[in-house]
Amino acid sequence: MTFELNEAVEILDRTPTMLASLLAGLSGGWLKANEGEETWNAVEVLLHLIEADRTNWIPRLEVMLQDGEAGAFPPFDRFAHLNNGQADSGADRLLVDFKVLRVRNIERLRELIASEDLLERQGTHPAFGPVKARELIATWAVHDLTHTAQIARVLAKRYRGDVGPWKAYLSILK
Amino acid sequence: MTFELNEAVEILDRTPTMLASLLAGLSGGWLKANEGEETWNAVEVLLHLIEADRTNWIPRLEVMLQDGEAGAFPPFDRFAHLNNGQADSGADRLLVDFKVLRVRNIERLRELIASEDLLERQGTHPAFGPVKARELIATWAVHDLTHTAQIARVLAKRYRGDVGPWKAYLSILK
Repeated sequence: MTFELNEAVEILDRTPTMLASLLAGLSGGWLKANEGEETWNAVEVLLHLIEADRTNWIPRLEVMLQDGEAGAFPPFDRFAHLNNGQADSGADRLLVDFKVLRVRNIERLRELIASEDLLERQGTHPAFGPVKARELIATWAVHDLTHTAQIARVLAKRYRGDVGPWKAYLSILK
Repeated sequence: MTFELNEAVEILDRTPTMLASLLAGLSGGWLKANEGEETWNAVEVLLHLIEADRTNWIPRLEVMLQDGEAGAFPPFDRFAHLNNGQADSGADRLLVDFKVLRVRNIERLRELIASEDLLERQGTHPAFGPVKARELIATWAVHDLTHTAQIARVLAKRYRGDVGPWKAYLSILK
């Protein structure tokens, strides 16, 4: 096991700032580009990260630490963000919302994991069965990085037809 | 064709700041993680981006605009950065180097492409034959995004063994 709480928090803390560095002030052409029908553009990915920070990671961790394996995880709708009207907010506003929410969630994470041994506490995942607090926190960090990579890929694909023969060297476009 | 010079520059301008938001001050465990033998860690990817900004994009564009199809592209060694001793500089120093170099290269790009029609100028790629200035600039932006996605993936894989059963939902770890 590699996991260490402070290192996981390094990633969680950086994600909103990094995404703001990339997306704030970016042209609509970039922000609205997606990979085709039924795929997300960069703003929709950002909305998904916000939704997960609101309803998934910390609420699940609270259930784990308060109710243990007997507790039921609150539901997480991976597509909720597409239907809640938030997409109408500009990207710059959403980037600030994400930063504020994340700072609060990291504070709450620190409160909940007051000592190392709490990382071993278990909850029951609806599909997987028993899962540990440290697995959930590691997944939270990896989820950030997954969607960061996705945003980079979505933007890159906008130039699929513009790179000419270099397409052969750019596996991200395939 | 989607390409528009100002929009390409939006990406080129943001990459060093975005990578600094992610990598500056990050623990050695993250910065040294790679995907296995013969793969790059985040700092090696950064060194590759610096090397390409030094010896690839602008020098090739200069050849295109000054010598046209008759000119030979200067060689680009995709592994040069692994052997030039620079890897000993800390990541924070390299992030500043990259930012300074990129700002200068964007200035030079603006000088070289003084009018829209110059985007159609051609050069001869050693493997592909005729390529256009706008294809090279589009490739430069996509190359940034490719390696941004790579860094996110390399970091994510560090927690491959830590996410427990959630691995099944995280395609980036496969």
